[in-house]
Amino acid sequence: MISASIKGKFEAIVGKENMMESQAQRLVYSYDATPNVQALPDLVLAPRSTQEVVNIVNACREEKIPIVPRGSGSNLCAGTVPIAGGVVLLFKHMNRILEVDEDNLTVTVQPGVITQDLIEAVEQRGLFYPPDPSSMKISTIGGNINENSGGLRGLKYGVTSDYVMGLEAVLANGEIIRTGGKLAKDVAGYNLTQLLVGSEGTLAIITEATLKLIPRPESKKTMLALYENIDAAAQSVSKIIAAQMIPATLEFLDQPTLQAVEDFSQIGLPTDVEAVLLIEQDGTKEVVARDVEKMAAICTESGAVSVKIAATAEEAEALTTARRAALSALARLKPTTILEDATVPRSEIANMVKAINEIAEKHQVKICTFGHAGDGNLHPTCPTDARDEEEMARVEAAFADIFDQAIRLGGTITGEHGVGMVKAPYLEWKVGSAGIAVMKGIKQALDPQQILNPGKVFTEETRKRLVVST
Amino acid sequence: MISASIKGKFEAIVGKENMMESQAQRLVYSYDATPNVQALPDLVLAPRSTQEVVNIVNACREEKIPIVPRGSGSNLCAGTVPIAGGVVLLFKHMNRILEVDEDNLTVTVQPGVITQDLIEAVEQRGLFYPPDPSSMKISTIGGNINENSGGLRGLKYGVTSDYVMGLEAVLANGEIIRTGGKLAKDVAGYNLTQLLVGSEGTLAIITEATLKLIPRPESKKTMLALYENIDAAAQSVSKIIAAQMIPATLEFLDQPTLQAVEDFSQIGLPTDVEAVLLIEQDGTKEVVARDVEKMAAICTESGAVSVKIAATAEEAEALTTARRAALSALARLKPTTILEDATVPRSEIANMVKAINEIAEKHQVKICTFGHAGDGNLHPTCPTDARDEEEMARVEAAFADIFDQAIRLGGTITGEHGVGMVKAPYLEWKVGSAGIAVMKGIKQALDPQQILNPGKVFTEETRKRLVVST
Repeated sequence: MISASIKGKFEAIVGKENMMESQAQRLVYSYDATPNVQALPDLVLAPRSTQEVVNIVNACREEKIPIVPRGSGSNLCAGTVPIAGGVVLLFKHMNRILEVDEDNLTVTVQPGVITQDLIEAVEQRGLFYPPDPSSMKISTIGGNINENSGGLRGLKYGVTSDYVMGLEAVLANGEIIRTGGKLAKDVAGYNLTQLLVGSEGTLAIITEATLKLIPRPESKKTMLALYENIDAAAQSVSKIIAAQMIPATLEFLDQPTLQAVEDFSQIGLPTDVEAVLLIEQDGTKEVVARDVEKMAAICTESGAVSVKIAATAEEAEALTTARRAALSALARLKPTTILEDATVPRSEIANMVKAINEIAEKHQVKICTFGHAGDGNLHPTCPTDARDEEEMARVEAAFADIFDQAIRLGGTITGEHGVGMVKAPYLEWKVGSAGIAVMKGIKQALDPQQILNPGKVFTEETRKRLVVST
Repeated sequence: MISASIKGKFEAIVGKENMMESQAQRLVYSYDATPNVQALPDLVLAPRSTQEVVNIVNACREEKIPIVPRGSGSNLCAGTVPIAGGVVLLFKHMNRILEVDEDNLTVTVQPGVITQDLIEAVEQRGLFYPPDPSSMKISTIGGNINENSGGLRGLKYGVTSDYVMGLEAVLANGEIIRTGGKLAKDVAGYNLTQLLVGSEGTLAIITEATLKLIPRPESKKTMLALYENIDAAAQSVSKIIAAQMIPATLEFLDQPTLQAVEDFSQIGLPTDVEAVLLIEQDGTKEVVARDVEKMAAICTESGAVSVKIAATAEEAEALTTARRAALSALARLKPTTILEDATVPRSEIANMVKAINEIAEKHQVKICTFGHAGDGNLHPTCPTDARDEEEMARVEAAFADIFDQAIRLGGTITGEHGVGMVKAPYLEWKVGSAGIAVMKGIKQALDPQQILNPGKVFTEETRKRLVVST
């Protein structure tokens, strides 16, 4: 519980209208996009400036009140569930694009900017911000940075961390640090920028970011290749890369996902094949034309039963929009949708998809798989029902097996969704006890009182897939 | 001093032939490429495996013996001078390319591999490892990773850190951590890979690295643009980027550098102009042809007095080789050569070059400037004589002014050379006292006994450019 005198302090900092404390308001911020994890915050605050964030941190530190920074809550690892209560920080007022610098190809933003708004703003100037998480219509840049979000264009263009050049952040001790800058090269000390990216609000509160932009590709083409078996699809992926082409997007959807997506989007996707690859290339017209032709030939040689290049930009857009809607489509099937992002080296995609299907069979659960085939980042997804405890136990066991298998194949427990609460029990599987010890040492150094987003990244529990809070 | 019993332990670990302790042998490893910094190690060890590194660390920890990992010692920040004595670790036996994985576009190497050998090995398979520090003929990959080396291709392709996907490293506590992997996406916990890159051996000893490769560009063209004034050269840089072209290389040399390079390489470079830009573009033939034509036009419009495209690959190679030799060429002018790498946002290049010239004038020192104009990474270089104390004081004052000016323009004290000993007094200027405190906290968490490369990155002293050890 937060005392009345502390609440008075907070109200003085952010103003009455930016402090929310009713049961209804707290309930809104008791969960995020992660199924089955919920906990009420004591208070919700919406600071208007970095200085207000500093003042909030100082007030919280005195009373050891947890602080959970939150964008739109679209993360899938319970990264923003206030599991230890305390204060949820909203960035709805710190949502401005501060500068687009065309000479240095950078954009400087506050954390509350919506990803898609940023992308559109820079595209209007002929520039390009590539990271495109499926949630980009609602996600914030601050959330993307805290989770190091990926997206469909990760294969060719990398993920959020590849575009973060500098940060302003408030430390647990109330001090402000500024890392990096508009600098293509900077080796002044340890790379705090990249330490903060993906640290899920557990090391500092990000209040401003300078992001790298690149020239907008002048053209793009999209194609769909259909397969009667998964191996042929996986072979196409390998052969495209082996032919030294890096497509902008190289997405995989299995038959059950395809069916769900078509039912949802009704754009005439085929639903009678085992798998499809959605492939996009961008760049200069000549390169796109040449690559698309070569990739289509490779898909056909590898056993695609059909390869179709989108005839118009609208048709292409419909295909990628349908793909982005995969989670929404699958979420309609059952009350609860567990979506994971086990990731393997690209060469192991076929093995991983087969392993997922065997694991689903073994535990008698339905798992639909789609994801970023080009970068080995798969999204095995289980439509289930959290009220069915017996089935949930099997789902949990299946996902534990999937993480285990991903690691056996040289992969990781999470490619782009983050650790948060739901992957914390598995983190040691990937990084080892020595790795956990190093990470905890860093956490302790930066946040000795454990006030920044406690209960995330690290956990006492192991091998427990689902956490249901009271 | 290291006791005979500890020496016995070391000999048992690495074998007699891999332990060097004579005065002559220790002298060889008492300095690196940095002028005027020298200190004798107690012992030099060349382990043959990660396990031997672990055993050495465990023996050193018990006695609090400093450990200085060292590649070829080509760094320019005194990063590998054993200022506190102790053990210098050589990686001459751990110098194998372990695997080139063409499916996943990765290469896995031991730290002792020579950068150029790696580049050539992957190019033979049609692949490309872009980071190309000027020292690449002699530098090791381990050294590149520890210093986060840049190079001429940084503008388009980024620096070493952009290509490090995974590391194996030995911690100060003797444990081995493995970070990342052959994974385009991995958000399992804090980004320890990027924390270690550029940490100069102060946080862990890197024993293996998995690096990202990309397809080798199919063609390349090189051109030289001559200018009567620096502003016109800087304007060309800005206009090329504003036209949304990112050249592979965009190098700047001022007249004094040009003169020194021509005297050294004798390839017929013009020496009667104020500045030149050396520009390379690579990619598909169509893109290269188009970009080079557009860039040549921009240079001419911006006031270049001559623009010449290299007619043959040999001519192009001669130009870039001459540029890479700039430091060697300048080093012939005087007994001591102080080369720095103050870096500014690209848009501030002209202001920075002018400021450097004013600072040189003010302190009455000669400063030649060349560097990576495209990424704002300049190398103001002072041919001087360390025996002339009065002049050295002026050189030191001039470089302090240069660092100060770089930071005022939104830049940094070091773009690609690292902090080591020589930039440590200036680090706080860039990262602030809060930033230093965070970095020290991380250092303390990972190396509480301060045995890993002590005296680097952090210092008690401030604003002292040159450190002469006893």
